[in-house]
Amino acid sequence: MRGHNFSAGPGTLPTAVMEAVRDELLEYPNTGASIIEISHRSPQYTAVAASARALLRKLLGLGEEWHILFLQGGASTQFYQVAHNFLPSDGVATYVNTGNWSTKAIAEARRYGGVQVAASSEDAQFSYIPSEASWDVAEGSVYLHYTSNNTIFGTQYRSEPTVSMPLVCDASSDFLSRPLDLDRYGLIYAGAQKNIGPAGATVVLVRDDFLQTRRPDLPTMMDYGTHAAKLFNTPPVFAVYMVEKVLRWLDDLGGIPAIQAVNQQKADLLYGRIDRTDFYSSTARADSRSLMNVTFRLPSPELDAQFIAEAKANDLLNLKGYRTVGGIRASIYNACPLAAVEALVSFMDDFEAANG
Amino acid sequence: MRGHNFSAGPGTLPTAVMEAVRDELLEYPNTGASIIEISHRSPQYTAVAASARALLRKLLGLGEEWHILFLQGGASTQFYQVAHNFLPSDGVATYVNTGNWSTKAIAEARRYGGVQVAASSEDAQFSYIPSEASWDVAEGSVYLHYTSNNTIFGTQYRSEPTVSMPLVCDASSDFLSRPLDLDRYGLIYAGAQKNIGPAGATVVLVRDDFLQTRRPDLPTMMDYGTHAAKLFNTPPVFAVYMVEKVLRWLDDLGGIPAIQAVNQQKADLLYGRIDRTDFYSSTARADSRSLMNVTFRLPSPELDAQFIAEAKANDLLNLKGYRTVGGIRASIYNACPLAAVEALVSFMDDFEAANG
Repeated sequence: MRGHNFSAGPGTLPTAVMEAVRDELLEYPNTGASIIEISHRSPQYTAVAASARALLRKLLGLGEEWHILFLQGGASTQFYQVAHNFLPSDGVATYVNTGNWSTKAIAEARRYGGVQVAASSEDAQFSYIPSEASWDVAEGSVYLHYTSNNTIFGTQYRSEPTVSMPLVCDASSDFLSRPLDLDRYGLIYAGAQKNIGPAGATVVLVRDDFLQTRRPDLPTMMDYGTHAAKLFNTPPVFAVYMVEKVLRWLDDLGGIPAIQAVNQQKADLLYGRIDRTDFYSSTARADSRSLMNVTFRLPSPELDAQFIAEAKANDLLNLKGYRTVGGIRASIYNACPLAAVEALVSFMDDFEAANG
Repeated sequence: MRGHNFSAGPGTLPTAVMEAVRDELLEYPNTGASIIEISHRSPQYTAVAASARALLRKLLGLGEEWHILFLQGGASTQFYQVAHNFLPSDGVATYVNTGNWSTKAIAEARRYGGVQVAASSEDAQFSYIPSEASWDVAEGSVYLHYTSNNTIFGTQYRSEPTVSMPLVCDASSDFLSRPLDLDRYGLIYAGAQKNIGPAGATVVLVRDDFLQTRRPDLPTMMDYGTHAAKLFNTPPVFAVYMVEKVLRWLDDLGGIPAIQAVNQQKADLLYGRIDRTDFYSSTARADSRSLMNVTFRLPSPELDAQFIAEAKANDLLNLKGYRTVGGIRASIYNACPLAAVEALVSFMDDFEAANG
C-alpha cells in the first residue's frame, strides 16, 4: 500500500502519474520499446519535450521571450552556472541568504565575481525571511538571487522581491505552487524532485534579453545559450517524460490557481493544528512560514522520535526533519493530497492526547 | 509488443530489468512509496547505490583505489570536466581524434590548457582507428584521452593504448562490454544510456592517485573530489536504480567474460552477413569495426531508406544511421539479444533476395 508520503525531496508524485508511467513502461504507445530505450531525437521524445514546454508556457504564462531548458545536475549545479554565465569578474551580484541553499549559492558565485549579501537570517537559525526594507542591495548588481522557499528551515517568501535589477530565483521547492510575476525575473531554476517530477532534471527558465548578457567563451555545456539554441546533448529523458505527465496532471486540475488554493488549505489545516495547543511548536516565524515544508517540534527530542516512529506505523511516512536540524518536517508539495494532511492532523490529535 | 530495438542510444535495456522496474514502480518493497519518491539519503536508496558500486567493483575488478561516481550531465559534461580538473593552463594533454565525440572533447579541453592531437582519422571520414605506432604523443602529457568506441562511425579500438601517461577514456558506448586493463587508466567515464541504463547518469571511475593531481578551487559540483568524498547533492536516483538492476542482470549472466562472448557472436554474425555478398557494404575499415555499432550501406540511399522502412514493418527498429552520415546502423549493445541479430540477418537475406 502507498502511504502518505511527506518526503522533502525527492518527494511524492501523483499516484495517477505513477500508474500511467508504469502502464507504458515497457511499451510506449506505437513504439515497440520504452520511452527510455529510444533516441532523444525520436518523434516520440520530441513530442514529449514539446508538450512539456507548451504546458509550462500555459501554466506560467511564459511568452516567447522565455527559453525553457531541461538540464541535468540540480540546483547545486545552477549555483555556479548562474554566476559563471552572468557575473563578470569585475561585476557584482546581490544575494539574500535564507538558509543552506542560499549559503551554497553565495559560495559558488564568489568564485566568479563580486557578491553582496543584502540580508541574512542566519542570526536566528534561518527561521525567517528578512524584510525587503532591511536589504542592502548593491547598486549596479547584475542580478539579485533569492531562494523562494527553504526546505530545511520551513520558510518561504510571502511575495516576490521588487528590486530594480533582474531576479534570479532558486525555485526548486515551490515551483508551480503559486504564480510568478515574470516581468521581475531574468532566470528561474528548479530541480524537478519536489513539485514537478523525479530527481534528474532541472527546469531553467531564462528570458532572452537576460540570456544575451552572459559572458562569451563558456564551456559548451555550461553555456545556457547552447541549450536555448537547440537540443545539444542527450537530455534526462525519463525525468522530462515524467515532468510532462505531472504538468498535464496539474493542468487538468485547473492549473496554478487551483493548486495554490489546495496548497493554502493544506497549510492552513496543518499550521492551525500546530498552533491550537502548546504541544507542537512551529520553528519558522509566523510571517515566514512555508506552504511547502512545515517544520515543527514536540516538547522533547525523545517525543520527536516517538512521533516519527508512530506516524510511520500509521503510514505517515518520511516526517523526520533535516539531518542537521532535527524535529519534524512535513513536506506538502503540490502532489501531496489534502487527505494526507487530514490524516496527519488526526494523528497529531491522537498523539497529543496520548502523550501531551 | 516489444520489437527488436537497435537504437544507438538511449538504447535497449534487458526486458527482465524493465519488468522488474515496472512491477515495483509504485511501491518499492517495504517503503510505501516509489524509489523515486523518497530521499536519496534513505536506507533504501543508499543500499541501491552501494549495491551498484559493489557490482561494478566485482564486474571490473576495481580495487579500493578506485572511486565510483554517479554523476549527471553525460559525456558532453565530462569533456570539459576532465580538462577543468586535470589539465593545467601551462600543461598539455594528448587526445586521439576518432570522431564527433573526440572532436568535441578536444574543443572543450583547449579552453583549459595545451592539447596535442596525437592522431586523427578525419582524413577518411573517421572510418578507422589510427594505429598507435603512428601517434605523436606529447611528452609530459598529464593524460591521454581516447574514445574507445565511436557510435556514429562504427569503429572501436581493438586494444587499449599503451602510453606512459594515465589514460582517460570516454567509454560511453562500450562500457562493460569487455574487460579493462585498469592499471593503464586514471579516469574512465561512461554515459549510462548505451550499455548500462537510461539517460541521466554518467558513471565515472577515477583512481585516487590521479584524482589527487586535480587543480584546487574548482566549482564544488565540477570537482570530482566532492563526489568522491561523499554524496554531496541529489543524484539521478531513478537512473542509478536502473543501472544497479542492469549490473545485477549482467552479473547473473556470468559477468563481462560471458557478455563479451555473446557480443563477439552477435558481431560475427552481422559482419559475416554484410561481407557475404556485395549488396551490403561495411563503412568501417575491417581492422577497426565496432562490436557495438555496426554501420553499413546498401547500393543506394533509396535502398537504405526502403530497408529501414521494411525493417521497421518487421519489428526491427531504429536502424537509421546517424543524422549527419546516413546509411544503416545496428547498435547491438549488451542488452541486445542474439535473437535480435538473428532476426536482422534473416531480414537482410530476404531483403537482398527481393531487391538485390
